[in-house]
Amino acid sequence: MSGTNSGAPRGGIDLGGTKIQAVVVGPDHAVIGQARHPTPTEGGPEAVAAAMAAAMTEAAHQAGVETDALAGVGVGSPGDVDPKAGTVTSARNLTGWEGEFALGASLQEALGTRAHLGNDVQVATDAEFELGAGRPYRSLLGVFWGTGVGGGIVLDGRPWTGRGVAGEIGHVVVRIGGERCGCGRLGCMEAYAGRASMERRARHAHKKGAKTDLFKIMEERGRTRLMSGIWDRALRRNDPLATKLIDEAVEALGAGVASVQNVLDVEAIVVGGGLGVRLGEAFAMRIGDAMLPHLFDDLHPPAMHVAALGDLGGAIGAALLARPASVRAV
Amino acid sequence: MSGTNSGAPRGGIDLGGTKIQAVVVGPDHAVIGQARHPTPTEGGPEAVAAAMAAAMTEAAHQAGVETDALAGVGVGSPGDVDPKAGTVTSARNLTGWEGEFALGASLQEALGTRAHLGNDVQVATDAEFELGAGRPYRSLLGVFWGTGVGGGIVLDGRPWTGRGVAGEIGHVVVRIGGERCGCGRLGCMEAYAGRASMERRARHAHKKGAKTDLFKIMEERGRTRLMSGIWDRALRRNDPLATKLIDEAVEALGAGVASVQNVLDVEAIVVGGGLGVRLGEAFAMRIGDAMLPHLFDDLHPPAMHVAALGDLGGAIGAALLARPASVRAV
Repeated sequence: MSGTNSGAPRGGIDLGGTKIQAVVVGPDHAVIGQARHPTPTEGGPEAVAAAMAAAMTEAAHQAGVETDALAGVGVGSPGDVDPKAGTVTSARNLTGWEGEFALGASLQEALGTRAHLGNDVQVATDAEFELGAGRPYRSLLGVFWGTGVGGGIVLDGRPWTGRGVAGEIGHVVVRIGGERCGCGRLGCMEAYAGRASMERRARHAHKKGAKTDLFKIMEERGRTRLMSGIWDRALRRNDPLATKLIDEAVEALGAGVASVQNVLDVEAIVVGGGLGVRLGEAFAMRIGDAMLPHLFDDLHPPAMHVAALGDLGGAIGAALLARPASVRAV
Repeated sequence: MSGTNSGAPRGGIDLGGTKIQAVVVGPDHAVIGQARHPTPTEGGPEAVAAAMAAAMTEAAHQAGVETDALAGVGVGSPGDVDPKAGTVTSARNLTGWEGEFALGASLQEALGTRAHLGNDVQVATDAEFELGAGRPYRSLLGVFWGTGVGGGIVLDGRPWTGRGVAGEIGHVVVRIGGERCGCGRLGCMEAYAGRASMERRARHAHKKGAKTDLFKIMEERGRTRLMSGIWDRALRRNDPLATKLIDEAVEALGAGVASVQNVLDVEAIVVGGGLGVRLGEAFAMRIGDAMLPHLFDDLHPPAMHVAALGDLGGAIGAALLARPASVRAV
């Protein structure tokens, strides 16, 4: 299989907790087709796989190809990913995906081309390292601030994935005995900074009478969840509850990411994810400032960047998995 | 210089906050001479270097050689170590060592053999990886629980030192806005678990009337600081204050080391340092238990070990720096 179709377009799918982003890229990694579908919240992994195939098909048609003409499709998935077996187990933040599911085989069947699975956060980090904000550096931490808070690590030019689950920076403890996280544990950074936790806390405070426009903006936009754009809008209006919860999120990110930096001492930190990309440069700098009081080497803080590939980084990174070199490596 | 004296004994010095441990090892790393001196608390780096040379000379005489017959002397030092320049800047937990000091040149002058500097915690971790409890593994975190809490990292068989200050696990934040650490920051793991912080908190509680035998034991032993053995004795007597402070230290180590494991996902954790070695296996297991509630991959916790080289690991690791291979590498 190696060597064939090396110039053919490749597909990439970023499977997120709220959306599925599919892209088709050319040999130079330029995006020539894209589609975004909401992640199904019912129907389990089968429904999610069907929605992924539909998004990929739409992106391929936009690029003017059928999916079986793609050199392959890469997938960045949450959960416990086994790239060799093509399976994903207990995908966090996705409903009804506790057990193992043969996502690779399901997509290959639907799309007529080979599927390559990888960890969502790691492929997005690899994309920033190779094509985005991380290009000038040899070591990098990707901080993906969205539904949860994920981390991807590149050390001395190579991804570090440990025994398979390295980079779980969202579950760095920032306050022993603190807020309960979506993972069930107490005091994780994600319990303060993950959008799912922030929404839970906002709903609770709203019910208790806290003044906020968050839910009004949500209804105006016909949404049922507090998407990143809603937080952004509320912040611009100086909404007191949104401001308070985002301040606490930035404080937690400051402590948690500084802790990780004290351990890894990387050259640069790239902030991505739904909230990270939406809130942009100003918030990457705010996180950098919030890190300073906790940074051991505060005379040499790491460079702070927003993910240069933006919202599409995860999908573009996934498409890297479908390169001929990756085919040979598998 | 390379290739000469490859079979000659090598020296190793572990420079700690309270003691200087020197060893002489044979080509098989067996210890053939050793000496331990207290770390001078007056006279700055010059006094410390003189005490290091005295300890090394004593260890060499025990091994039946003069120091100028050693193939070289390795040093594991705290602070900002520049191995190429042979300098150490702002050595933490040592008094009067804020600026840069040419420790390498000073020791070479006193000992008549080449000195090789390295980070104290990293050389101790390398020693456990190569010769001690870490031998079965490819990735490792060394947790050195003593005056402070230091960390050494081995990933895929190689030390990871970042831009020079990786592994500062003592300054992982376990409680935003928590206790003040010796480093001046708030809520660091070391603020709860470092022996210097524990002593500060014990003195404060004692002054406020807390019941404890810690200071009685200290006086009986003719000490002015709460050394590891004093904590051990007090714990065995079920001293209430010692028990409370050690419980809090273990809780902080559990959260902080679990945070590091969530990021690195290494195969094994080796607990060393003055307190780690003194309290031994039972406490390494207690730290492992305290990690579990915070461990993302709690179904696959890392293996927990006590440093197999014990108190001498730092000095034996330092002696690794003086191997001919290291000479060539420099």
